[in-house]
Amino acid sequence: MSRGIIENLIEELTKLPGIGRKTAQRLAFYILSMPAEEAKSIGRAIIEVKEKARFCSQCFNITDSELCEICGDPSRDRKRICVVEEPSNISVIERTGVFRGLYHVLLGNISPLDGGNTDNVRLKELLERVRGGVEEVIIATNPNTRGELTAQYIRELLKSSGVKVTRIAYGLPMGSDIEFADEVTLAKALEGRREI
Amino acid sequence: MSRGIIENLIEELTKLPGIGRKTAQRLAFYILSMPAEEAKSIGRAIIEVKEKARFCSQCFNITDSELCEICGDPSRDRKRICVVEEPSNISVIERTGVFRGLYHVLLGNISPLDGGNTDNVRLKELLERVRGGVEEVIIATNPNTRGELTAQYIRELLKSSGVKVTRIAYGLPMGSDIEFADEVTLAKALEGRREI
Repeated sequence: MSRGIIENLIEELTKLPGIGRKTAQRLAFYILSMPAEEAKSIGRAIIEVKEKARFCSQCFNITDSELCEICGDPSRDRKRICVVEEPSNISVIERTGVFRGLYHVLLGNISPLDGGNTDNVRLKELLERVRGGVEEVIIATNPNTRGELTAQYIRELLKSSGVKVTRIAYGLPMGSDIEFADEVTLAKALEGRREI
Repeated sequence: MSRGIIENLIEELTKLPGIGRKTAQRLAFYILSMPAEEAKSIGRAIIEVKEKARFCSQCFNITDSELCEICGDPSRDRKRICVVEEPSNISVIERTGVFRGLYHVLLGNISPLDGGNTDNVRLKELLERVRGGVEEVIIATNPNTRGELTAQYIRELLKSSGVKVTRIAYGLPMGSDIEFADEVTLAKALEGRREI
C-alpha cells in the first residue's frame, strides 16, 4: 500500500498549525530521505512530550517532573517572580539572560469579554507564593487589552501584601523606526522616558 | 527538567526543512495543547514511515509491501507506464485523475554535469518492464535541463522496442497570463498548438 504510510504521514502533519497539504508533502518526503534514527527521534520527541509533560507544581511551567528546571535550580533568585501568561513566554525571557529569578505562569489571562472572570488564571497560587518572602513581582503579561487587565488585577491583588509590583516597560522596539511607530506605543515610549 | 522535553522537541523539529526556531517553538507548544492521542499519532506516523518504507519492487514508488498500491491495483491499465523522477511526483499526477496506468520511478535523472551518467536511474528495470506488452511510455520527467536530457535518453533507449513514447505537453500554465510568460515556454506553447 504505497499511499498508506506516506499519505498517513502527510495527513498527520497537516494537523499542525500553518502546515498545509503542500508543506506536509514536502516534509513527508524529506522525512523519508532522512537517516532513520534522526527522523525517528523527531517522532519520539512528539510522543515523549505528550507522555511526560505536566505542569510544575510551583510555577505551572511545563516540566516532566514535580518541579520545573527553573524552580529546581538553587542558583535562581527566589525573591523575584516574573508573571507570564503562557509557558512559552518563559523561554523568550530566558533567552535575554537578564532575569535570574523564578516565574509564575498564569496559564491564561483575564478577559473583559468574560466580565473579568479570574477563575482560569493561577492567581490564588501566586498569592500563596508571594507570602513566602518574595520582594518583587514583575508582571510580564502581554501589552494588550487582556494582558493589561490581568496586570492591573494582579497589582490590586498584591497591594496589601507589601511586595513591590513592577510591569515590563512599554516603548519602541529596538531597530524600529519612529516614523512607523503607532501612536499608542510612541505615547508610552514618551511617558516612560528615562534620563541618560 | 522543564526545558528537557520541550527543548528537545523544539530542537528535533528544527531538523525539518523550512522550520526555524520560532516555528518549531510554535509547533511544540501547539503539540503540547493537542489531545494526547492526536499528537502521538503524528509521532507514530513519522516512526512508522521510517520503519516500513521501501521501494516497490516493480515501479520504485514508496510502499510498505512488495508491490505499491498502484502496481497492486488490478483495475489499473497495465499497457501504459508513466515515467517520473521521484516518488513524490506520483501523487501530483494521481490527483489529476487523468492517468489510470502504472508508474515507473527513476529515483533520479540524468545530468549533463555527470557527463550523462545513467547509473543512478532505474532504466534497466524500465526496459525490462516495457518488454512485457506495454503500449505507451509517457515521460513525465521535469521540464528542465536534466529532465529533458533524461526524456531524450529514454526515447533513444526505447526506440528499438517499438513502444509508443510520449512526452507530457509544454505550454502555458492554466490561469497564467501570456503577458508574463517566459519566451521559452511561449515558444513551446506555440509549437504545441492544437486545433480546437
